[in-house]
Amino acid sequence: MSNKEEDSVTGSTGTLLVSCPDRKGLIAALAQMLADHGMNIIDTQQHTDLTAGMFFQRLRFDASELDISRDDFKDLLRIKLSRFDMDWRLSFRDEKKRIVILVSKFEHCIYDLLLRHRLGELDCEIPLILSNHPDLQHVADSFGIPYRVFPIDRTNKAEQEEKQLALLDELGTDLVVLARYMQVLSPTFIERYRERIINIHHSSLPAFVGARPYHQAYERGVKLIGATAHYATADLDQGPIIDQEVTHCSHDDSIEDLVRKGRDMERITLARAVRAHLEDRIIIFGRRTVVF
Amino acid sequence: MSNKEEDSVTGSTGTLLVSCPDRKGLIAALAQMLADHGMNIIDTQQHTDLTAGMFFQRLRFDASELDISRDDFKDLLRIKLSRFDMDWRLSFRDEKKRIVILVSKFEHCIYDLLLRHRLGELDCEIPLILSNHPDLQHVADSFGIPYRVFPIDRTNKAEQEEKQLALLDELGTDLVVLARYMQVLSPTFIERYRERIINIHHSSLPAFVGARPYHQAYERGVKLIGATAHYATADLDQGPIIDQEVTHCSHDDSIEDLVRKGRDMERITLARAVRAHLEDRIIIFGRRTVVF
Amino acid sequence: MSNKEEDSVTGSTGTLLVSCPDRKGLIAALAQMLADHGMNIIDTQQHTDLTAGMFFQRLRFDASELDISRDDFKDLLRIKLSRFDMDWRLSFRDEKKRIVILVSKFEHCIYDLLLRHRLGELDCEIPLILSNHPDLQHVADSFGIPYRVFPIDRTNKAEQEEKQLALLDELGTDLVVLARYMQVLSPTFIERYRERIINIHHSSLPAFVGARPYHQAYERGVKLIGATAHYATADLDQGPIIDQEVTHCSHDDSIEDLVRKGRDMERITLARAVRAHLEDRIIIFGRRTVVF
Amino acid sequence: MSNKEEDSVTGSTGTLLVSCPDRKGLIAALAQMLADHGMNIIDTQQHTDLTAGMFFQRLRFDASELDISRDDFKDLLRIKLSRFDMDWRLSFRDEKKRIVILVSKFEHCIYDLLLRHRLGELDCEIPLILSNHPDLQHVADSFGIPYRVFPIDRTNKAEQEEKQLALLDELGTDLVVLARYMQVLSPTFIERYRERIINIHHSSLPAFVGARPYHQAYERGVKLIGATAHYATADLDQGPIIDQEVTHCSHDDSIEDLVRKGRDMERITLARAVRAHLEDRIIIFGRRTVVF
Repeated sequence: MSNKEEDSVTGSTGTLLVSCPDRKGLIAALAQMLADHGMNIIDTQQHTDLTAGMFFQRLRFDASELDISRDDFKDLLRIKLSRFDMDWRLSFRDEKKRIVILVSKFEHCIYDLLLRHRLGELDCEIPLILSNHPDLQHVADSFGIPYRVFPIDRTNKAEQEEKQLALLDELGTDLVVLARYMQVLSPTFIERYRERIINIHHSSLPAFVGARPYHQAYERGVKLIGATAHYATADLDQGPIIDQEVTHCSHDDSIEDLVRKGRDMERITLARAVRAHLEDRIIIFGRRTVVF
Repeated sequence: MSNKEEDSVTGSTGTLLVSCPDRKGLIAALAQMLADHGMNIIDTQQHTDLTAGMFFQRLRFDASELDISRDDFKDLLRIKLSRFDMDWRLSFRDEKKRIVILVSKFEHCIYDLLLRHRLGELDCEIPLILSNHPDLQHVADSFGIPYRVFPIDRTNKAEQEEKQLALLDELGTDLVVLARYMQVLSPTFIERYRERIINIHHSSLPAFVGARPYHQAYERGVKLIGATAHYATADLDQGPIIDQEVTHCSHDDSIEDLVRKGRDMERITLARAVRAHLEDRIIIFGRRTVVF
Repeated sequence: MSNKEEDSVTGSTGTLLVSCPDRKGLIAALAQMLADHGMNIIDTQQHTDLTAGMFFQRLRFDASELDISRDDFKDLLRIKLSRFDMDWRLSFRDEKKRIVILVSKFEHCIYDLLLRHRLGELDCEIPLILSNHPDLQHVADSFGIPYRVFPIDRTNKAEQEEKQLALLDELGTDLVVLARYMQVLSPTFIERYRERIINIHHSSLPAFVGARPYHQAYERGVKLIGATAHYATADLDQGPIIDQEVTHCSHDDSIEDLVRKGRDMERITLARAVRAHLEDRIIIFGRRTVVF
Repeated sequence: MSNKEEDSVTGSTGTLLVSCPDRKGLIAALAQMLADHGMNIIDTQQHTDLTAGMFFQRLRFDASELDISRDDFKDLLRIKLSRFDMDWRLSFRDEKKRIVILVSKFEHCIYDLLLRHRLGELDCEIPLILSNHPDLQHVADSFGIPYRVFPIDRTNKAEQEEKQLALLDELGTDLVVLARYMQVLSPTFIERYRERIINIHHSSLPAFVGARPYHQAYERGVKLIGATAHYATADLDQGPIIDQEVTHCSHDDSIEDLVRKGRDMERITLARAVRAHLEDRIIIFGRRTVVF
């Protein structure tokens, strides 16, 4: 079930996302803990990685009849789940996540995200758009979202990033979305928002690294072109993959056509990845993700 | 997790598929019942239809440490689940399902199923292929599967169906697959194997009924052609949909091309539907299916 | 080859789109006529419908060295092609087509078209957006395009359509795009812009007519949801199909999810259809299209 | 139009595939040459690579009224096309191409090709299946095709390849299909059948080289898995790409699932590539292909 059916649920829903070493009784224990405090599970997905011996679960529940405070419930989870060596994350739909979008000069991804946000597809707040260029001010304006420019050159990157981070912290940012932001983030930045930065980049088979990937893809005559959304890690473009999409291309596609098709793939893939994150569907596990 | 990872599980796995009116505590109760008897859940998917107020769940568990007999466990489920007004189905992977395939003269679907079976993709036994024509005897032979012909004409249908049904019953058939079987089954036949007959048919947008659907699709200039797999019901081709697939077509595709592309869609869609059934992933709910 | 490679062509390109009863020598005659006047063919696609005995061709050529005036060249075509009983259309890329977009309250399609236009994906002018509601004025504003409202009620439709048509004529409109325009156009309107109105509507397998198609698709449990772009004809939603696209859906998709996925399909399909029209890739042939 | 419509053409069709430096008048010259000798063009596709200044065209024509012998027509082409510095290939549908399939132990690709051949999807003769293992003898038998085994070990490769090549030559082989043949062909072999060997291999994003690609893809958590068909070159798996296909995968897919999905992609992609070659749709141009 998806989150709009929640309209049928009076009050709010909560989502609990857990991972831990596998052992017997985990599902019963988690379900019981929710039931004990009046919460009905709306849907749950669970996965066991038998090779790694790991347990993963997402539980979405009706939180409207929670009979203790949310803080108390979190304390309870902390105490009761500690014996399972469990990583867990609890969120409530009425406590909307806050995402900040970083852009440079390309407008297709930012437009797509803002339009989906306005159409109600992305259940979050977008308090700010950050850029290293003034070019997309008008896009932010037309959606009524503040736009701040931090120009970055060879000398000021660390300093500018510090300001950006201060701003992100101040805004209580839950997720940073790199919507074709053409600056490489420093390891410091990435570490501060570890597992909370989503990036999008082009993809093809074979993959091309370095400059002008579409030119390389064209020269190689690839028949598929696409995009990969992943969490940013210090190892550029090598972070855990969230989603991927491709489309067919042919000799009939010029480099400009490949770029155009790539834009469409980037829009679709980035939006799906951000949506999955907002709906607490993703658990990072080493270099991989579980996307429920 | 998918069923081949079970190789890592010592012993066998079981699958419990349940549906009932939604209420609190269902997941905890089910999980507890499994845990109480030594069974570790490998994976579970759950869905609540909030509009209909219905609860659906699939639980796959390690059955190797079940501490009572399987029959006793079934009795226990019957007794304990009755209070929830629950429909449930329990199966064990080492008790392989038995499917009988019905064919006429088209060989693409039967070949595909038999090849996938031999490659280990379809975890079942295929004790028999039934046909109203002798044409595909050689296919059955090359895979070492018995082939029986029941010619059907205007006068003998009821009689021949009775023989077919007797045979199906005798073989302990769990699923009947209509792999392009060109006879309409009688309501009697369908009722006897209700929710246990999978059919495949062509699909296009718009859909065409009656004779020569590919000719109609060609005349209409459709740009997509595909196939739908569904459970057979008395209302022909209107049963609960299990899976659908389409592919692009164009003015450049002749009727014969549409037929060829349709064959590919039929193969893929039918195989996926049969596999989902064999893995106990499907719950029929009114005219719809939940496919976990 | 696609039109952006024209950047490599000095000067402008022309496109000649022809259809006629098939006979020998057509390709040679057309190619010779272009060669005779200094024009190099950049690419050509040709199709023969053997059943109908019809010939279709699209020729794109470098028009920069045309050695007579464009008007003279058109006269020449008229005279020389008359003996082949040929329908033909000649256009030049530097004479941009003018499209007028009609909208109501949904903004996803209009946004997508305007964004693609700004990104250079749609090679045309958009002199006007027409609507029966004031709601999307802000979208038009943010792209700097005039927006005119013609409210339509039970009594004034014919009269309002006359005004709309006068405006379309005055603007030299080559194509009318119904980007989720929720009014049924009168036969008069459709006849005036015959083969020059593109519409988009939802599609599923089976197809549902009447109100609330997504509710019907949900109730029926379809596993694919999509969109069809077609030329508008008096017989609503039955015009020649230009393009279709679908995506997978499941029990996990609420009606709202289906609507969301449908929006994505509508955006993609409508944009592709408009682009194909602008690039003179489409020939209408009876109820069908040839899309090169 | 596709080749089955030829049923409507009395007699046979021919296909002329040409590439040469671009210049004016090529299309007219080619079309005229066909018209001069009584041949009606059924369809043609043409592409100009403006960057490289290259011209490519495929012409399919009704050869039934060719007024000179085929050999004379070839001589004529040789003489008349020499001034254009043109590479060209002429084939007639009634002179069926002969393909030899090389396999090892995997049966999914060979089965798929043989089934499609029997269904009439691959218009060719298959005089022989070659293998380095006896395992798939039964598959060849069930389709009535000769099967020859050339076991290959560290010491005898050159010698065995010589025998294979002698056999291929003797059979008048037009195309060698590596249907999961697990031996690396020597540069000598590849050179002898240059541009006439099609190979299929797994693909994912990112691509993995070396052993156990599906394990690597699993470890990396890719969300798409697929296959690439290409012409074999001395530089392993780097030859000109003919076709590619992918499908979605997730955390829920075990390595065995990835292998299963990969098999489906390999079957589809290899069959499409072989079909395109048989229909003379492919022109190799450097590291790329034009696939009409």
